[in-house]
Amino acid sequence: MSEKYKVTPWKVEGVVDYDAFAKQAGIQPIDEELKKRIAKYTGSLHFMLSRGIYYAQRQLSWLLDEYEKGNKFYVYTGIAPSGSMTIGHLIPFILTQWLQEKFDAEVYIQIPDEEKFLSHKEPDLTLERTHELAYEDALDIVSLGFKPSKTKIFLDTEYASTLYKQAARVAKHITFSMVKDAFGMTNEANIGWIFYTSMQAVPAFLKSVEEGKNVPCLIPLAIDQDVHFRIARDVIGKLGYYKPAIVHAKFLPALNGASKMSASDKTQAIYLNDDEDTVRAKIGRALTGQQATAELQRKYGGDPDKCVVCQYYRYFFEPDDRKLKKIFDAERDGSMLAGEHKAELAATINEYLRKHRQKKERYREKLDSFMLEC
Amino acid sequence: MSEKYKVTPWKVEGVVDYDAFAKQAGIQPIDEELKKRIAKYTGSLHFMLSRGIYYAQRQLSWLLDEYEKGNKFYVYTGIAPSGSMTIGHLIPFILTQWLQEKFDAEVYIQIPDEEKFLSHKEPDLTLERTHELAYEDALDIVSLGFKPSKTKIFLDTEYASTLYKQAARVAKHITFSMVKDAFGMTNEANIGWIFYTSMQAVPAFLKSVEEGKNVPCLIPLAIDQDVHFRIARDVIGKLGYYKPAIVHAKFLPALNGASKMSASDKTQAIYLNDDEDTVRAKIGRALTGQQATAELQRKYGGDPDKCVVCQYYRYFFEPDDRKLKKIFDAERDGSMLAGEHKAELAATINEYLRKHRQKKERYREKLDSFMLEC
Repeated sequence: MSEKYKVTPWKVEGVVDYDAFAKQAGIQPIDEELKKRIAKYTGSLHFMLSRGIYYAQRQLSWLLDEYEKGNKFYVYTGIAPSGSMTIGHLIPFILTQWLQEKFDAEVYIQIPDEEKFLSHKEPDLTLERTHELAYEDALDIVSLGFKPSKTKIFLDTEYASTLYKQAARVAKHITFSMVKDAFGMTNEANIGWIFYTSMQAVPAFLKSVEEGKNVPCLIPLAIDQDVHFRIARDVIGKLGYYKPAIVHAKFLPALNGASKMSASDKTQAIYLNDDEDTVRAKIGRALTGQQATAELQRKYGGDPDKCVVCQYYRYFFEPDDRKLKKIFDAERDGSMLAGEHKAELAATINEYLRKHRQKKERYREKLDSFMLEC
Repeated sequence: MSEKYKVTPWKVEGVVDYDAFAKQAGIQPIDEELKKRIAKYTGSLHFMLSRGIYYAQRQLSWLLDEYEKGNKFYVYTGIAPSGSMTIGHLIPFILTQWLQEKFDAEVYIQIPDEEKFLSHKEPDLTLERTHELAYEDALDIVSLGFKPSKTKIFLDTEYASTLYKQAARVAKHITFSMVKDAFGMTNEANIGWIFYTSMQAVPAFLKSVEEGKNVPCLIPLAIDQDVHFRIARDVIGKLGYYKPAIVHAKFLPALNGASKMSASDKTQAIYLNDDEDTVRAKIGRALTGQQATAELQRKYGGDPDKCVVCQYYRYFFEPDDRKLKKIFDAERDGSMLAGEHKAELAATINEYLRKHRQKKERYREKLDSFMLEC
């Protein structure tokens, strides 16, 4: 790991160098050829793929080979509840929903409600609280448009009669030394946290167990989760199952431009339950790539790559490439000033969140049909 | 731990010094006063208590105080399946069944079918195999006369949707350092085995969770299991539940006189599924306390304390104290020779096993009514 930044599933520090991370983790880029192969089946690429927000992969070419042979894949992703979801949390689910639609893929969504309980030190994050949050997260997720007939969502504590047995099979192949090295744990880590990575591994081969034959699996995730599967993929191979393919997303930046919008820094994240005033105030504080004064900005223009406002459009709120180019150009040529720029983004986000909440209400009574128990 | 012997849940080596063990573990004897208090409720003492086979305890006086106040206790014990049960394995269940009868106690029996899978290195001990063995163990256990309405039996892998959540609460308070020190684990221990002790802790407070109020718990166990609860009792206290009381049994000796009849040394144990010839052959090889020749034995007599045949009567096969005394006297005064002695014991064991198997057949179709899932 470079000394300039640090990426673990529990903390991201410094300015992430995505190419260096990929190199160090041994993951490959999603190159033009792979994008073309995906587009062959999907018609058009999701903007998160075409724009390189999903930028790296493991074994994606193999997954598409299998698909070509008629061997359909399922998609596995998840979220560990710790509070309201941020817009950054939605990135894996947005791609997953698109994959379900385009590939008619079955989707497994794990909500490890014990994870933050075990890894956090806050005493108020009880299992009762994470359980509540888990159901709220599940509702946020299904509201993106998942199909009940093709989507299985489960909490670790509620689905453990299925998961724990398989986790034990995984755990037998993982020593404390391995976990210590991979996650930087010490001897003072608690034994639930140490064991946890085995639980996260299970959905990557669970469908193969259930069907009694190997089923390819694709995992969209943000890069901080890759380390779990660096260990798990080897073990899953040893157990005789296909190793899962992975596509890796970059982090949505924080409001202040830090590499990752982290749910644990409340002032720097936009939450799905933020009200309109809060969103306006937060975006008002967002880092832009603009000059120090309006005059200088008009004269020299700004840098959209450093501008959080532009990046939120690129990652999330402007799917149309031509419109995105206009926004970037207006930032670059100085024709759009920060205030106007931010007001427009805040309005766009508020409109998105308003619609999202409407969809949540429609999905609320359907939620049970997505959830698995035992 | 003394250097002369070693007791862990996975291995017992050397000649166990039970008093030294109790001292080192910080456990107290079951003294005459405690025995009298028990007998006050039960009428007569079970011979395993009166003979000091159960010889030590934690917090037993408190448990009886609670009982006196009308606060009934439940009993928790268990077995980790690894093969057919030995007669030694029955000792905690025999006392548990007696406690159920005498105190009208509810009984929780945990069958951790992942434990030997995780702690063993034999590749043929799969989870499928331990699952099979677990059901055979459950049948052996209920055949001792447990009441279906008052007995709950569960396998860890089948009951994990209940157990795992509670185990996570326990695990959060246990560091790898603690497990390393207590069990002598190294960094090369697998993370499932490291986590396992949390699963074993759960049934000691599960009834309190279920009832939403504290219920006293009594755990009969062989001393090698005490270490799990040395850690767990503190944690259970921190979680706000009553710490469980424990009664500790000595080990049934192996045929060769080694301290513990271990299921992993097949030649030195009597299994519940041994046939009559096997039992005769095994008892024929058992260590006795007799002199080298019949003539010397007639002249000087033997030592019943060193005689495995006498000890099997004492631990298990002769509940009647007067009859036991006759057996011991006949060994001591030289009037009974090894061959005759062994033939009688083998016949007694075979009769016990024959009846046990008959009971098993009667219980087989009732077994489901004891088992919990999810």
